[in-house]
Amino acid sequence: MTPPSLLVFGVEGLPEIAAGASIGVLLAAQAPLEPGDVVVVTQKIVSKSEGRVVAVDADDPAAKRRLAESEAVRILRRRGELVITETRHGFVCANSGVDLSNVAEGSAVLLPVDPDRSARGIRDAVRAIAGLEIGVIISDTFGRAWRRGLVDVAIGCAGVAAIVDLRGTVDGSGRVLAATEMCIADEIAAAAELVMGKAAHVPVAIVRGVDPSWLRESSAVAEIVRPHGEDLFR
Amino acid sequence: MTPPSLLVFGVEGLPEIAAGASIGVLLAAQAPLEPGDVVVVTQKIVSKSEGRVVAVDADDPAAKRRLAESEAVRILRRRGELVITETRHGFVCANSGVDLSNVAEGSAVLLPVDPDRSARGIRDAVRAIAGLEIGVIISDTFGRAWRRGLVDVAIGCAGVAAIVDLRGTVDGSGRVLAATEMCIADEIAAAAELVMGKAAHVPVAIVRGVDPSWLRESSAVAEIVRPHGEDLFR
Repeated sequence: MTPPSLLVFGVEGLPEIAAGASIGVLLAAQAPLEPGDVVVVTQKIVSKSEGRVVAVDADDPAAKRRLAESEAVRILRRRGELVITETRHGFVCANSGVDLSNVAEGSAVLLPVDPDRSARGIRDAVRAIAGLEIGVIISDTFGRAWRRGLVDVAIGCAGVAAIVDLRGTVDGSGRVLAATEMCIADEIAAAAELVMGKAAHVPVAIVRGVDPSWLRESSAVAEIVRPHGEDLFR
Repeated sequence: MTPPSLLVFGVEGLPEIAAGASIGVLLAAQAPLEPGDVVVVTQKIVSKSEGRVVAVDADDPAAKRRLAESEAVRILRRRGELVITETRHGFVCANSGVDLSNVAEGSAVLLPVDPDRSARGIRDAVRAIAGLEIGVIISDTFGRAWRRGLVDVAIGCAGVAAIVDLRGTVDGSGRVLAATEMCIADEIAAAAELVMGKAAHVPVAIVRGVDPSWLRESSAVAEIVRPHGEDLFR
């Protein structure tokens, strides 16, 4: 069997996204999509398209923290103006994902209310307009416990599994794998970030060549949110 | 400027790796490498090549935990036979990275003693034999706090940055980015995992097309280990 190969590339030429823009319509028209592609869309343009932009006093260092706290259901840690919070979605991240970069001075971008719904909307538009079955992942840039540096992860998905369960499959030695649930949505988001960069204005990337068995009608990023009872660090 | 694109593919036809095998020599001979490629090598074959395999009683459920504890400098959490430990390298992971899958019954594979050195050895062999400048990442499969599912991360690197510091660069709005240090080594490891699978016997992947500015002579995965004083969750 030939091992699979992936091609990961950014989508060029998208306009600046404003409230009310349909990212799905734009991608159906402009992105060189093929069936089975997974499109990774950065959270920021999704939030902007959904009007999730609020005013914040850029001169008040505590304003962002207060905004972050208002978007949280729980505060895990504080250090100076940084808060590590749990969002309504169940994500644990810095400042509830509230972001001041790549947005007009005096504004802040909040996470989408329901990123899975955002992903489904993009998928449905591409299917309706272009007749293509694709997967969609909404990505954001998160820090991690214990490891320095940020990585992009999935905060919403549609048409592609969040986690692929390899439990019960057989490894290369013929031994049954005990527990190998890979978070392929996070890995796809990470791969996409490598061609986006933070300053390059490439808010959408296409990942071509993912295992077709990972594409599925029903998927939700809630699969990734570790329940409190199973979480050793919350 | 054309956005970059990445090609990610597995290396076929590698033999089973035994103690004493030189992965770098094998790759120089068999892998279709080009200058600037980043080669991602899974920890397991690196450990096997370095003889980091020990006997463990497969019928004793506590044996793996004891082995994991013996490989740890600190135990963060316990649940049943699972321990979350800090390894001598500073990694926080399940069972100190001790692994029983893809290895002969009654054996366990330990992490390499110095995965950066392992990566340098592979890089130096490819340079000496094939005359190619490449990056090398040693990857392993780790769980995360708060997020279900496993992802591959970097545990060693050579010739490619672990973290790329975008601090001080300007974002798309002309605003100076405050802190965007991306852990590109982890993102590259994650991208590679997507073509490896856990059961597919593809222990090496090539990531072609990474930003040339990320390739550098001096790099170390220690960049990724968050110092205790800066860590909010240890």
